[in-house]
Amino acid sequence: MCQSHAYLVEANGEETLVMEDVSVLKPKGDTIVLIGMFGEQKEIKARIKELQLTEHRILLEKS
Amino acid sequence: MCQSHAYLVEANGEETLVMEDVSVLKPKGDTIVLIGMFGEQKEIKARIKELQLTEHRILLEKS
Repeated sequence: MCQSHAYLVEANGEETLVMEDVSVLKPKGDTIVLIGMFGEQKEIKARIKELQLTEHRILLEKS
Repeated sequence: MCQSHAYLVEANGEETLVMEDVSVLKPKGDTIVLIGMFGEQKEIKARIKELQLTEHRILLEKS
């Protein structure tokens, strides 16, 4: 199980969980499309801040 | 072991392995910084094309 959880990181460092168990991530213009392990999709106006794969964390920030 | 391998995808779809077992990935301007599981670093002029976490694949494209 190597899916990661995606968090939106606010300017003050606060993290909000956006999606658990992300299977696929695709940047699309100024949004990010997240696809979960059961095919559920979420599109969020954000960009990738950092991937911490060992900790299973995808950190996003508002774009 | 949830590190992924990073590949650079050419316009013709050809994939070149950039780094195995990527632990951390950070976008930095028009480059991507990859950090491996032993702390080794590589900076590449690219952007993220797609993450396929279930397949442990990070796909990059030239920026």
